[in-house]
Amino acid sequence: MTASKMILGINGSPRRSNTEILLEEALESARTRANTHTKTISLKETTIHHCIGCFRCLEQNENEYGCQIYRDSMDEILIELKNCHGLIVASPVYFGGITGQMKTFFDRTEPLLRYARGSWRLTLRNKVGAGIVVGGNRNGGQETALAAIHHFFLVHDMVVVGTGPDEQPGCYLGAAGFSGQDPAKGSRVKDAVRDDEVGMRAARIIGGRVAEMVWSMV
Amino acid sequence: MTASKMILGINGSPRRSNTEILLEEALESARTRANTHTKTISLKETTIHHCIGCFRCLEQNENEYGCQIYRDSMDEILIELKNCHGLIVASPVYFGGITGQMKTFFDRTEPLLRYARGSWRLTLRNKVGAGIVVGGNRNGGQETALAAIHHFFLVHDMVVVGTGPDEQPGCYLGAAGFSGQDPAKGSRVKDAVRDDEVGMRAARIIGGRVAEMVWSMV
Amino acid sequence: MTASKMILGINGSPRRSNTEILLEEALESARTRANTHTKTISLKETTIHHCIGCFRCLEQNENEYGCQIYRDSMDEILIELKNCHGLIVASPVYFGGITGQMKTFFDRTEPLLRYARGSWRLTLRNKVGAGIVVGGNRNGGQETALAAIHHFFLVHDMVVVGTGPDEQPGCYLGAAGFSGQDPAKGSRVKDAVRDDEVGMRAARIIGGRVAEMVWSMV
Amino acid sequence: MTASKMILGINGSPRRSNTEILLEEALESARTRANTHTKTISLKETTIHHCIGCFRCLEQNENEYGCQIYRDSMDEILIELKNCHGLIVASPVYFGGITGQMKTFFDRTEPLLRYARGSWRLTLRNKVGAGIVVGGNRNGGQETALAAIHHFFLVHDMVVVGTGPDEQPGCYLGAAGFSGQDPAKGSRVKDAVRDDEVGMRAARIIGGRVAEMVWSMV
Repeated sequence: MTASKMILGINGSPRRSNTEILLEEALESARTRANTHTKTISLKETTIHHCIGCFRCLEQNENEYGCQIYRDSMDEILIELKNCHGLIVASPVYFGGITGQMKTFFDRTEPLLRYARGSWRLTLRNKVGAGIVVGGNRNGGQETALAAIHHFFLVHDMVVVGTGPDEQPGCYLGAAGFSGQDPAKGSRVKDAVRDDEVGMRAARIIGGRVAEMVWSMV
Repeated sequence: MTASKMILGINGSPRRSNTEILLEEALESARTRANTHTKTISLKETTIHHCIGCFRCLEQNENEYGCQIYRDSMDEILIELKNCHGLIVASPVYFGGITGQMKTFFDRTEPLLRYARGSWRLTLRNKVGAGIVVGGNRNGGQETALAAIHHFFLVHDMVVVGTGPDEQPGCYLGAAGFSGQDPAKGSRVKDAVRDDEVGMRAARIIGGRVAEMVWSMV
Repeated sequence: MTASKMILGINGSPRRSNTEILLEEALESARTRANTHTKTISLKETTIHHCIGCFRCLEQNENEYGCQIYRDSMDEILIELKNCHGLIVASPVYFGGITGQMKTFFDRTEPLLRYARGSWRLTLRNKVGAGIVVGGNRNGGQETALAAIHHFFLVHDMVVVGTGPDEQPGCYLGAAGFSGQDPAKGSRVKDAVRDDEVGMRAARIIGGRVAEMVWSMV
Repeated sequence: MTASKMILGINGSPRRSNTEILLEEALESARTRANTHTKTISLKETTIHHCIGCFRCLEQNENEYGCQIYRDSMDEILIELKNCHGLIVASPVYFGGITGQMKTFFDRTEPLLRYARGSWRLTLRNKVGAGIVVGGNRNGGQETALAAIHHFFLVHDMVVVGTGPDEQPGCYLGAAGFSGQDPAKGSRVKDAVRDDEVGMRAARIIGGRVAEMVWSMV
């Protein structure tokens, strides 16, 4: 058995903002479990080219690097994906889904697919995944964004979990934050989600749920 | 051109409650448009058997009644579906979707399908559809329930609209109500959605949007 | 550790047909794993009333029976849900979703919710869930029906898995069958899915995946 | 009344391939309607930066250019979006959704939102939208990608249509192609969808349906 477990959080926001707050809340909650540590990758600090659908990453027998076309931030991200036991994907909701940045990252995980031949194949299989999203409308695509994240997890043959047994989950699919808080509360756009008790609570639940599950798998 | 237009609201709730409030709010809004009237069917006052998938309704060359197996409330509902120009489907969110009652109704609209041979064929084609849902969790399946309603509309080759150009839509897919209002406001379970300004506003928008669109189609 | 594991299959079809074929294929595959047995419940042989949303099942401190209103087939089904370690939900695709029969069953699992007070509370938590669906159009709602099944699983705080690491999954979300096979192959409506190699293979994968996972949870 | 109508196709594929084939099939079908012409934008020939969520495009009272940060291909694309009457969004399926390229484009349509103050506001409102997708697995995310496209349309208060009244739609949500054709047919990866009769037919239907609808709106 692994002596410790690592949960990786990927933040798809282009800003320092609500998504970061929720993700950190989740990871802090995860770290309260013994021997569980976390890492965060913020896509806004990376350079990731769009996948061009060439399939070369799948065809290599051995590939030190996943992508055969681009040398960019994906080189290190793939390593973190290999090292983690749990994965939390966090994104603001843009047009009913995850951000273009996050989708671009998703597309570049191609070398990890079941169809690959090289050493990156099925890197994420059986790892535990959960989603965190936050939108400026109350029901502005949080659910559809979470479902898109789940689809990504299942493509990688991961195990999908939601907001645990909590009695005030807000959303069952994952943590759904709402950043359009009442200015009367003094909420500011950039960290309005701090005033969203439902979303903040759900983020903590998600962190705990992923931590629980990474230790529940044989 | 038709001198008047009828918008039909179908209520899938088993209770006198939040769904009814939202649907009535929407229909009242629709009726403010000239020559636009509305009807409501509440499924809790009907008897609708589960479709048994026999396809006999499709095979008849002429069918006074749609279903060849059951004589039940669908006989009259089909007539209303034929008479309407717009359709608003309203349901509480149960387990991330519409109610079993509503799904049972959906399944029994089989005689209206493109695959039918008789006079009911394509009854709903080019009619305007929109959804209203309300859930006890803030992001408890409102979006996925609305998407399921849209799927139903597109099976029938209807035209799908959302919450119009309003700047506080809450949800883009349709009216998404939240019935888990703070008891501190004095909200009661059975009509809590009255305190949900987002949902109530969205319901009015949906009614207006469907009314607008039924008059926008040649 | 449990000496054996039980995987329960629920069949939401009103017919003896393609759904049954796929579900049995999945369960047969599951049984090839040691000490893993299966049970099947076919909803067409049951009587299940629509949930009326009264919430009484949640409020009881003790409830021998889950539902406080109806004595029907749910009494025994709840027991099987309690006994199982994995759950495979199988449905034909009707109007882009699961059948009304299946949704009606979903709605009646209310006593198992996190919100319950009695002994049925969280019965399904941490159990492994996967979906099987089959439709008469190739992309006729298989994915949206599977996503609806996943939503149900996550409401119950289950663990969701897809089509495993197989390289010809057809669908990642679950087993997606297609019953509209070419009559030139001699396919008959009632068992056309037997000629659907993609769907049949996926069903076997799903059975194996659920069996794998029920033994992978501590 | 406009003397002619323009239908714009946006191709989100990074390759010359199946998506292009389906989109061209759709547009050719649309052009068979009198006075209906088409344009195509292929995102692989554009440069589009990721939206950074600054909201400046919304705050301008007048904005000759939509985005206040980047001068890139969106400048011309916004003009085409303004000029079109119907919009067909076509994408390969990557990880259960549209491509990162397409999502990045979606995100940059922010200046067209209802929340904008400038002249681009609500540019797409009441325009007709439909989706085309193609995937290498039969049920590999075609439906979920189409639903994501619909969400984008409804954010812009567009009118969503599906595969018309055709009796062999394959999918109701839009044209769903399958590029994983049997090599025994001689299908090649790059244009395999030509052998997919279901997808090709659906593409033609979608083109015709959008053309029908742009002329059906007052």
